[in-house]
Amino acid sequence: MGLVGAEVAKHNSADSCWVIVHGKAYDVTEFLPEHPGGSKIILKYAGKDATEEFDPIHPPDTLDKYLPESKHKGPVDMSTVEVEEKIASPDEEERLERVKNKPSLSQCYNLMDFEAVAKGVMKKTAWGYYSSASDDEITLRENRSAYQRLWFRPRILVDVTNISLNTKMLSTLTSMPFYVTATALGKLGHPEGEVVLTRAANMHGVIQMIPTLASCSFGEIVDAATDKQTQWFQLYVNKDREVTKKIVQHAEKRGCKALFITVDAPQLGRREKDMRSKFGGEGSSVQKDDDGVDRSQGAARAISSFIDPGLSWKDLPWFRSITSMPILLKGVQCVEDVVRAAKDPNVDGLVLSNHGGRQLDFAPSAIELLAEVMPVLKAQGLERKLEIFVDGGVRRGTDILKAMCLGAKGVGIGRPFLYAMSGYGQDGVERAMQLLRDELEMGMRLLGCATIEELGPHLLDTRSLGQHGNGIPRDTLMEEVYDGLTVPGWGKSRL
Amino acid sequence: MGLVGAEVAKHNSADSCWVIVHGKAYDVTEFLPEHPGGSKIILKYAGKDATEEFDPIHPPDTLDKYLPESKHKGPVDMSTVEVEEKIASPDEEERLERVKNKPSLSQCYNLMDFEAVAKGVMKKTAWGYYSSASDDEITLRENRSAYQRLWFRPRILVDVTNISLNTKMLSTLTSMPFYVTATALGKLGHPEGEVVLTRAANMHGVIQMIPTLASCSFGEIVDAATDKQTQWFQLYVNKDREVTKKIVQHAEKRGCKALFITVDAPQLGRREKDMRSKFGGEGSSVQKDDDGVDRSQGAARAISSFIDPGLSWKDLPWFRSITSMPILLKGVQCVEDVVRAAKDPNVDGLVLSNHGGRQLDFAPSAIELLAEVMPVLKAQGLERKLEIFVDGGVRRGTDILKAMCLGAKGVGIGRPFLYAMSGYGQDGVERAMQLLRDELEMGMRLLGCATIEELGPHLLDTRSLGQHGNGIPRDTLMEEVYDGLTVPGWGKSRL
Amino acid sequence: MGLVGAEVAKHNSADSCWVIVHGKAYDVTEFLPEHPGGSKIILKYAGKDATEEFDPIHPPDTLDKYLPESKHKGPVDMSTVEVEEKIASPDEEERLERVKNKPSLSQCYNLMDFEAVAKGVMKKTAWGYYSSASDDEITLRENRSAYQRLWFRPRILVDVTNISLNTKMLSTLTSMPFYVTATALGKLGHPEGEVVLTRAANMHGVIQMIPTLASCSFGEIVDAATDKQTQWFQLYVNKDREVTKKIVQHAEKRGCKALFITVDAPQLGRREKDMRSKFGGEGSSVQKDDDGVDRSQGAARAISSFIDPGLSWKDLPWFRSITSMPILLKGVQCVEDVVRAAKDPNVDGLVLSNHGGRQLDFAPSAIELLAEVMPVLKAQGLERKLEIFVDGGVRRGTDILKAMCLGAKGVGIGRPFLYAMSGYGQDGVERAMQLLRDELEMGMRLLGCATIEELGPHLLDTRSLGQHGNGIPRDTLMEEVYDGLTVPGWGKSRL
Amino acid sequence: MGLVGAEVAKHNSADSCWVIVHGKAYDVTEFLPEHPGGSKIILKYAGKDATEEFDPIHPPDTLDKYLPESKHKGPVDMSTVEVEEKIASPDEEERLERVKNKPSLSQCYNLMDFEAVAKGVMKKTAWGYYSSASDDEITLRENRSAYQRLWFRPRILVDVTNISLNTKMLSTLTSMPFYVTATALGKLGHPEGEVVLTRAANMHGVIQMIPTLASCSFGEIVDAATDKQTQWFQLYVNKDREVTKKIVQHAEKRGCKALFITVDAPQLGRREKDMRSKFGGEGSSVQKDDDGVDRSQGAARAISSFIDPGLSWKDLPWFRSITSMPILLKGVQCVEDVVRAAKDPNVDGLVLSNHGGRQLDFAPSAIELLAEVMPVLKAQGLERKLEIFVDGGVRRGTDILKAMCLGAKGVGIGRPFLYAMSGYGQDGVERAMQLLRDELEMGMRLLGCATIEELGPHLLDTRSLGQHGNGIPRDTLMEEVYDGLTVPGWGKSRL
Repeated sequence: MGLVGAEVAKHNSADSCWVIVHGKAYDVTEFLPEHPGGSKIILKYAGKDATEEFDPIHPPDTLDKYLPESKHKGPVDMSTVEVEEKIASPDEEERLERVKNKPSLSQCYNLMDFEAVAKGVMKKTAWGYYSSASDDEITLRENRSAYQRLWFRPRILVDVTNISLNTKMLSTLTSMPFYVTATALGKLGHPEGEVVLTRAANMHGVIQMIPTLASCSFGEIVDAATDKQTQWFQLYVNKDREVTKKIVQHAEKRGCKALFITVDAPQLGRREKDMRSKFGGEGSSVQKDDDGVDRSQGAARAISSFIDPGLSWKDLPWFRSITSMPILLKGVQCVEDVVRAAKDPNVDGLVLSNHGGRQLDFAPSAIELLAEVMPVLKAQGLERKLEIFVDGGVRRGTDILKAMCLGAKGVGIGRPFLYAMSGYGQDGVERAMQLLRDELEMGMRLLGCATIEELGPHLLDTRSLGQHGNGIPRDTLMEEVYDGLTVPGWGKSRL
Repeated sequence: MGLVGAEVAKHNSADSCWVIVHGKAYDVTEFLPEHPGGSKIILKYAGKDATEEFDPIHPPDTLDKYLPESKHKGPVDMSTVEVEEKIASPDEEERLERVKNKPSLSQCYNLMDFEAVAKGVMKKTAWGYYSSASDDEITLRENRSAYQRLWFRPRILVDVTNISLNTKMLSTLTSMPFYVTATALGKLGHPEGEVVLTRAANMHGVIQMIPTLASCSFGEIVDAATDKQTQWFQLYVNKDREVTKKIVQHAEKRGCKALFITVDAPQLGRREKDMRSKFGGEGSSVQKDDDGVDRSQGAARAISSFIDPGLSWKDLPWFRSITSMPILLKGVQCVEDVVRAAKDPNVDGLVLSNHGGRQLDFAPSAIELLAEVMPVLKAQGLERKLEIFVDGGVRRGTDILKAMCLGAKGVGIGRPFLYAMSGYGQDGVERAMQLLRDELEMGMRLLGCATIEELGPHLLDTRSLGQHGNGIPRDTLMEEVYDGLTVPGWGKSRL
Repeated sequence: MGLVGAEVAKHNSADSCWVIVHGKAYDVTEFLPEHPGGSKIILKYAGKDATEEFDPIHPPDTLDKYLPESKHKGPVDMSTVEVEEKIASPDEEERLERVKNKPSLSQCYNLMDFEAVAKGVMKKTAWGYYSSASDDEITLRENRSAYQRLWFRPRILVDVTNISLNTKMLSTLTSMPFYVTATALGKLGHPEGEVVLTRAANMHGVIQMIPTLASCSFGEIVDAATDKQTQWFQLYVNKDREVTKKIVQHAEKRGCKALFITVDAPQLGRREKDMRSKFGGEGSSVQKDDDGVDRSQGAARAISSFIDPGLSWKDLPWFRSITSMPILLKGVQCVEDVVRAAKDPNVDGLVLSNHGGRQLDFAPSAIELLAEVMPVLKAQGLERKLEIFVDGGVRRGTDILKAMCLGAKGVGIGRPFLYAMSGYGQDGVERAMQLLRDELEMGMRLLGCATIEELGPHLLDTRSLGQHGNGIPRDTLMEEVYDGLTVPGWGKSRL
Repeated sequence: MGLVGAEVAKHNSADSCWVIVHGKAYDVTEFLPEHPGGSKIILKYAGKDATEEFDPIHPPDTLDKYLPESKHKGPVDMSTVEVEEKIASPDEEERLERVKNKPSLSQCYNLMDFEAVAKGVMKKTAWGYYSSASDDEITLRENRSAYQRLWFRPRILVDVTNISLNTKMLSTLTSMPFYVTATALGKLGHPEGEVVLTRAANMHGVIQMIPTLASCSFGEIVDAATDKQTQWFQLYVNKDREVTKKIVQHAEKRGCKALFITVDAPQLGRREKDMRSKFGGEGSSVQKDDDGVDRSQGAARAISSFIDPGLSWKDLPWFRSITSMPILLKGVQCVEDVVRAAKDPNVDGLVLSNHGGRQLDFAPSAIELLAEVMPVLKAQGLERKLEIFVDGGVRRGTDILKAMCLGAKGVGIGRPFLYAMSGYGQDGVERAMQLLRDELEMGMRLLGCATIEELGPHLLDTRSLGQHGNGIPRDTLMEEVYDGLTVPGWGKSRL
């Protein structure tokens, strides 16, 4: 009946570190220094059952894939493993209370509402991972703010009886001008993970981009799709190009219709809100000095095993040689690189993106960049060479319409669907998509456009888009002294 | 003595749905799927007395007009109808308390004050309907903010002993440069509805625009006017053009002096604050999936019966053919459409308007558009072809003066009068108008203008009007850490 | 021993209205409709002792000057007058408590501090009068904000061992580049009124402008000055030009060195904060309909008796004919009028001013206007024709230096000295002036200027001065949902 | 065994004033009027032990250096000195409680976190001294805000496997592009003072600038450095040039590699927050009138003994004549002076700086000035003549990268290291530097630069840098009345 808990429990240190996952024991001692998430978190479970912590952050096939057979110590008799009693913190108890009383799905009228619900019902660390971004999270919020510096110039007296939201992205006809973009670790939000998004996307005829860092395995996500569905594949390029090749060709074989190579993450961003929520009062040491690893090489080495910081323009012909999927660059962030991509014969498109504000703070928003890029491409006769997508900060149907007006082929949406899934599962994601559909139809009618093709820059006032002033700092003395105007008094006290 | 309550009460489902209104029973079973407000709200009153809910939202002649005689089930003996006991919610009890203690009318010194009072005394759903706007309500507030980006360049040493506010709109001499614009459902704010506005307008010699969607019937509103009063008519164009023709010609016959065709509402806006206040904890499903109606057609069908989304420039000659009233387009939102209207022989004027922010969020404010439009019209020699009006966000006499400086012929005011009426009835509306009169006179004197004709763009600094930046997002860390300056301490505690 | 209280008390209505002031009775029945402050406030004291209310708002010689001898009913035996027991409101009791605990003078480190103290110790109505401004008080605060849009370009390595703040205004050498500008009703802040300012100005060698609407009589203020002091005279022009002539010539005879004619107040502004604080829960009716006076003429008539709304450029030669004092226009508000004044042979200078934000809301700040005006004057060779002063919003030594850099001859300061006086009497005003002196010296040193003459526009960055954007309205949903970054937790609770 | 306490205690007035410092008595009677900090603070300790107050504000050799031997009264038998019992104020007790519970160092994830901790654990007066700045502290905060108006234009697909942060400053190769700039009074934050910074700088291979006004003596700071370390010297120029010469030549002899002459402080700034925290409820009199000193000369004289306000461009050749260290001007604040410095043969470099906002409020931020300056220098072919450094407001690795992109040779950081030292001593400073290192490496990777040389203005969007608008003042009525949108309700109460 396998190993007994007491045996596993002996291997509870860096010298000999075993962990139990899904009823099997693994010896990860040698793997400790290479774990991208640091050894500290593994050691916390040394000699114990790590399944609950492991699951949302790793696809089920991770251990089989990355740990040599020899380290698989075999099944454990789970009845012999000591169960740690969990005492919910007061914060956690409040959360559980909120889960019980959460608003009904029908009370969610827009995508922000799902975020509010998710904030209330998600575990603190999961919320920290999804919601966080880099440094001061200025870019995170700028992604949203930038859309609000774009104003419409609507047309009237156009026959808008029948509205069509159909559009083509990379030769696929799709029912609406947005797609589910790749986001990591779906099981943090929902026990079933990314397949929930797959199923909801199917209900609305929306394309899904499959993430490399999913909680579900790639196979599970592909299997969850119907025949009619289109899926794309997002790739983090591994330093070991053979691994990369295998992944890409497998994706193509399983039917993925496009390859999106992430280019904005040679190193994964540092997200302080996430760190603070994860480590709590304990704190974490600075990224590199975990476990006494040599500072000058440790981090680079750890990261480079999964994401190659050496990836460059020179690698693109190789990608073309290993796949016939369209190749797109995900995370382009300046005009010059867009032009270069347009001239590169190996590139079929790109996503203007700053990785949801999770990589470089003060990277520009995709929508502002789009408004800069398109006139340059047109001036150089390159506008048909690339299909350009944008993501980041999209919350309203009108945001999508603004991007389409400026020349995007489609708009990626990530966090809002994760939040909807975290709050309400597939129903939540479907409602989120339905809300967008309604907002899109309404927006088209009120703009005076019956089809996506009619959208164009003449419908926008972009004059304020480039304004990033922050004004002079507050005059705290004047604010404290000023006696503001008030409305009429109400009986004795005010309204 | 008519039907008894128990008989009506049997028809309490979608299969057979009767409702009582003003003591008469109606069979609305077949009408359910066509009700613009959705079937859900009717079913709530199936088999019961719906008068209180029905009244503010429908003119009294609605049922006679739209429901075939055969569905009129005749009088009900109301003494046999079970009266549901109402238990006021704690919110509602607080509201009733506020109604008792509301500020005296003489404490209202400006139009914002009426809004504050209305917010306190109106029923939550009524307030939700009046105050709400579309999406994030950015345009709603931009309408007000835009006026505040306009600064004066006042003239001194002008003889301003005698000020005249008289001006002409569409050949009518009027006492002040504003009019009461069309707003729906006046009985939500006051049991007598729109006729209250009619009477107040008469006291101040102000023009009123009669709304299609009034709570009072058209006839009641016309009847409430005196001989000296001028009324205009606002039209939602029905898909059935014969119905439209009948309505327009009836308005002309009853003395309306101008026809304002609403062109910014091919679909009625979705207002989340309104939905949240109406449906409360229960929530509403997405617009289209009520009652299992086919999603691809349901909404369009429902809406198109009252408001034709197919209305287009091609329809204008027909309007000219059925009426000799001046024809104006209400809701023009971009320069190009203004120029087109100016060149269209069937258009006599227009209202720059975004429907009070209730239709397309991020539509521009009328005042900003006006400043863009007038120079273009002048450059093309078209400035005399149209009379241009604006509405949205007007709260101060100086707002009106700014619009007049920029070339408007008059300014429409809606919500503020509804709020004044909701708080204080006709007295409130009259005081609101008197406050505007005082502010206008004061403003004229301080600008150095004795007559409306003297107002012009030379009195304004418009440089900041087009600035819609929103700055970079807040630096929450710095704000939390910064130790603001303070004023001297006060004994122990501060002031 | 004079009249008895009971006799006076009989005249307690609009039909026969007597009031007691400083122990004498006056019949003001006929004067009621002409009282600029409205009849209501007088009737409140009909038949009673009005001294306390009367004093701060009227110079002591008012009744003798304006009420015919026949209406003087003679002395009253004050021991027979019933004394109304006053019960302090809770607000008033809190105020008295604050007066007891007010910060020591030495804790006031800048001019804002005096405002904070005044807000705490002044009577609500007095504070309301001093601090209020017109409409939304946007211009009031813009006056201050505009200075903060001006940045320095300081010079280094200049010998600033010895700093001189001396400068000439209208041929008078003065010790600092500011003057005490005219403000009304000094006794609301201090029982001795404007003479307190006179004495403090003497201590610092600063010029004072005497207001027409002082609480002290003109004579008292002149008498309070020493031989070395310079005083100017501010004039509201009376419709009766003989009265005006008498006033002006008297001022010149008593030694006033300049005449500042107020041109921004053909009608006195409506200040809602003032009204709300004065009338409290009772409210006031709209300006014009007090006492049933004919609306179309009432207000104009009442006002015109003191301030002539008919004053115009045509009157200037007449002023030149009656005085040899330099003539300055106070309250010029646009470039065109400055140019006109520069070309008018009867004008020697002017004050760019919007009356402290108390007249037309959205009038521009003086400092912004100054930056616009000076280049125009220079381009037309008119810059030496006028001495230009500015007032409004000045709180820091650097504000004064900014105005001097842009070409002002001096800067008027009003409210801050009233607040200093209200909090601490003459000591307060002196310290306020000393603080400015310190700030000016410091500012000069750090700018790299040893004398006022060295100040010039090369020391300023004016690029942002004209920016009056207000950004897009707040995104209330995003703000509610966004989970801001925080600093490290502190034991359990945060810092 | 020396003097007894009672003897010293007799000299407790301005007539005869002795103080005890580190167990020795000193007669400071004659020095009182010359004390730069005013006589008041000394008199507080007249006849008593002043060591605790004295220590952080004076280097240990101060008394030996500045007080004639004859005033040294010799050792005191400290057992005979009466010890004043200290009663901690409630504020102080709360602080001590916070000290006990302060966050662990590993919870500090960025430089702002150290400031938050310092704010909690530092004594109020020490915090007041470090954190305060001049006037309204607008420039203090603008220093930080300006960096946030700069946006990146990142490059992708660059090989960033190996990142080097090495750079040269004034011929010294250093490990990172920042240095520890000179800040006064280190012992206010940590009992060991500036040497803590020296040691931490050594650990990270970072240059330190030694301040004239250190708490440690110059010798102590130099002695604390290792052989590999580079130190620069910051100089306040004494009016007595012989003193200055001695100081400079001593610094050079002890190995300092550059001389930074402070040019932005002919007079030390007035910092109100500091004054308020120091004098508390007592307040301080205006700067000059302490002790009845003649106002026109007192302050100038007191200041000029330490810092010469007469320092000018003419003095630069003399500096060149006394030292062969590179000479840099610290505190240059406008383009014209940069150009002049570039043309001056005696200047080798400069620091764009406004003294951390502590001198002239509304002086521009260094980063904005840098962006203005570099193109001018390039246009005149002067860009290689000077090494340009900047300081003020730097908190993030990306701030440093922005400055390097714009052409700085290095970035000075002051307060953040003081705060880290105040909270956690040397460990804190080291972690602060490590955090910056991590942020720099991350930023370089995400910008697509492997070496500092690759940074350039093409990586920045500077369009918003010059925007210093502050918008129109708040519309307090609208804000009070507006009924903001909300997220779904949560059971009964909201989230």
